Amino acid sequence: MAKALRVALAGLGTVGGGVIRVLDANRDLIARRAGRPIEVVAISARDRTRDRGIDLSRFEWVDDTSALAAHPDVDVVAELIGGSDGPALTLARATLAAGRGFVTANKAMLAHHGLELAEAAEKAGCPLKFEAAVAGGIPVIKGLREGAAANEIGRVYGILNGTCNFILSKMEAEGRDFAEVLTEAQALGFAEADPTFDIDGIDAAHKLSILASIAFGTRPAFGDVAAQGIRHVLGADIAEAAALGHRVRLVGLAESGPNGLFQRVHPHLVPFHHPLAHVTGSTNAVVAEGNFVGRLLFQGPGAGEGPTASAVVADLIDIARGEFGPPFAMPAAVLTDAKPADSGERRGRAYLRFMVEDRVGVLAEIAAAMRDAGVSIESLIQRGATVDDRVLVAIVTHEGPERCVAQALERLRGSQSVAGQPLWMPILG
Amino acid sequence: MAKALRVALAGLGTVGGGVIRVLDANRDLIARRAGRPIEVVAISARDRTRDRGIDLSRFEWVDDTSALAAHPDVDVVAELIGGSDGPALTLARATLAAGRGFVTANKAMLAHHGLELAEAAEKAGCPLKFEAAVAGGIPVIKGLREGAAANEIGRVYGILNGTCNFILSKMEAEGRDFAEVLTEAQALGFAEADPTFDIDGIDAAHKLSILASIAFGTRPAFGDVAAQGIRHVLGADIAEAAALGHRVRLVGLAESGPNGLFQRVHPHLVPFHHPLAHVTGSTNAVVAEGNFVGRLLFQGPGAGEGPTASAVVADLIDIARGEFGPPFAMPAAVLTDAKPADSGERRGRAYLRFMVEDRVGVLAEIAAAMRDAGVSIESLIQRGATVDDRVLVAIVTHEGPERCVAQALERLRGSQSVAGQPLWMPILG
Repeated sequence: MAKALRVALAGLGTVGGGVIRVLDANRDLIARRAGRPIEVVAISARDRTRDRGIDLSRFEWVDDTSALAAHPDVDVVAELIGGSDGPALTLARATLAAGRGFVTANKAMLAHHGLELAEAAEKAGCPLKFEAAVAGGIPVIKGLREGAAANEIGRVYGILNGTCNFILSKMEAEGRDFAEVLTEAQALGFAEADPTFDIDGIDAAHKLSILASIAFGTRPAFGDVAAQGIRHVLGADIAEAAALGHRVRLVGLAESGPNGLFQRVHPHLVPFHHPLAHVTGSTNAVVAEGNFVGRLLFQGPGAGEGPTASAVVADLIDIARGEFGPPFAMPAAVLTDAKPADSGERRGRAYLRFMVEDRVGVLAEIAAAMRDAGVSIESLIQRGATVDDRVLVAIVTHEGPERCVAQALERLRGSQSVAGQPLWMPILG
Repeated sequence: MAKALRVALAGLGTVGGGVIRVLDANRDLIARRAGRPIEVVAISARDRTRDRGIDLSRFEWVDDTSALAAHPDVDVVAELIGGSDGPALTLARATLAAGRGFVTANKAMLAHHGLELAEAAEKAGCPLKFEAAVAGGIPVIKGLREGAAANEIGRVYGILNGTCNFILSKMEAEGRDFAEVLTEAQALGFAEADPTFDIDGIDAAHKLSILASIAFGTRPAFGDVAAQGIRHVLGADIAEAAALGHRVRLVGLAESGPNGLFQRVHPHLVPFHHPLAHVTGSTNAVVAEGNFVGRLLFQGPGAGEGPTASAVVADLIDIARGEFGPPFAMPAAVLTDAKPADSGERRGRAYLRFMVEDRVGVLAEIAAAMRDAGVSIESLIQRGATVDDRVLVAIVTHEGPERCVAQALERLRGSQSVAGQPLWMPILG
């Protein structure tokens, strides 16, 4: 059998430990598939003494993580440290500069520095692979980069954050509110102690910017992704959505059109008949729409030790097979700069929810603001029941430009009748 | 830009025409992704005069299809003729013998001769690729071969035949019976004039044997796939299944276990909460369960010009990129011969339906046969309504070995009370 692919692991948290477990458990099978063995030869992490439940004595321990980059016995470095900058980025730059392959699960780093790293990898003729960075164990980078490569992609969108989907599913199943469910998710380990990146949509935005680059042949443009998370979704919104035949999902969506590239992470209403409506718990799912293939759906576990490690090892197998090419599906030099599309131009139906004082004239005020902004109302529901002494008014608009809805909301700003911020959610069409 | 990949097309039916349309419409994009242009240089089909709505004058027409194999200007032959033997097989053998790449959508040929062709391709160091052969536009071959490559696969299963799923969905939606819906599907072009291969599960069995080989590292063994189609499913079965919280789907399932490799195509009851229950119309979907990644789902259009052509061109792009390896994920020489597992050993719940005479003692006779064979009944429904003067009795069994159910049915064979063949369907667990 051919010479082993020699791997250094940087970071021995959940995913790093998982990679060792996968390579141990499926050693022979992986060698048969890869055409040669894949061997971890060196490891590095912050804390040498922590018990990770794995015998690490068989690997060379390297104190200085950045020394893995030029380690003489290493073909590929797998970075599982995380963080957009700092040690992960230093290691990535040094590894590619040293002419070694680099595999990472680090979406934040790729969203911010992916182009630079792709250029470095291509210059060195080395692989840079990151299947685990988007949607955990689901081979969606491969699905877009290779599986759908014959197609012009119109849209790519999906459920990219398992924590948010877990929370929304639980709010839905149990009729509870966000804060309560978040606390429980944290206790169960489904949400981080500092959940900001997840629940405010930043993590999903990182992933979306990577998917969009591969789908549209554009430079990753994380700064152009408008991100809004799920903090403001009420249990009552989920109930209204259900009454309207929809579920609430945090959807990251990128769309290429005549006005440019539109990228947004936002809670959406998803109709029951759409496959994303049936994605519950921490599962992820990505839809790609191609001009010949139509609608492809990739679904599976979006995080966790086993799934993420599975994706990291899949990248290592590709490298062992010599099956790798430009990281973003085409050479970095031919990626284009997409003009960000103005969301105001986008047309669609939307859900609007107001918490209002229960008194005469409130509905008239809201309806007038809609009319004056040119928003056509498909349905309006005011339920008798009150939340915190206020009444919920839910509106579904007919299809129209988002600009008009924004104007209507602007007109209502400062109204004495409307409490707090209204919630706007696009309806996935 | 690098030298073009030069392609010959054998067969200019729906898919062949589609390949030309994809390469025309997405020419520049494909060249950017593939790293070089992909050019059709020669074509061959039975009928030169037929109007296919495409300008064919720019391609060299070759009357003798088999002459494409050694054509001096051709790097890859794409075979879109079909048929397990005959001209397609002759062309495949000759092309690989001549040291050219071969791309095909021909599941029947691969199911019967895949191992021989893989050996020939590996010997010649040439690509043999067949993404379009299974599940049309869905990159599921790639998903298993590469995306899930780090995993030991326990089961791979799915909806592999769009015609059957179209018919079952329509029977379900409209409460109609098989024969009627088949006739309509034929009129609409969703079923062939001779629908045998589709509705009797042969087409799905071809595809399953290919998936199983890649998933389990075994030689394709089409002869070991037990295939049963959807002819015997009544509208009433679908209604009973729905009342029990299930939908009826034709599922191809391959499972590797201590008793060997089990491969079967059969109508199943699929619980509402399972993603396959939501796959309607001619859509296909495949689930792979890996020991680290968990459950992956790949879903999309399983047939038709655009999707199938998309998969053929994806293979061409992989070849243009130089990203190909052993066709069945590992070298043909290391594929093993799987021992076929005895279905009698399989444990599961099942649905049984009898059409019986409406008279005293019939239920007792059925119940006794179940008891004597050791089948434990979870629920039994006898509806008052009659079909063709007979009464429907539906049984759901507790989990148990299939052997016992088979014995119970054997005991009832020849009974005066039971009309025709009872229908048995496993419940997907």
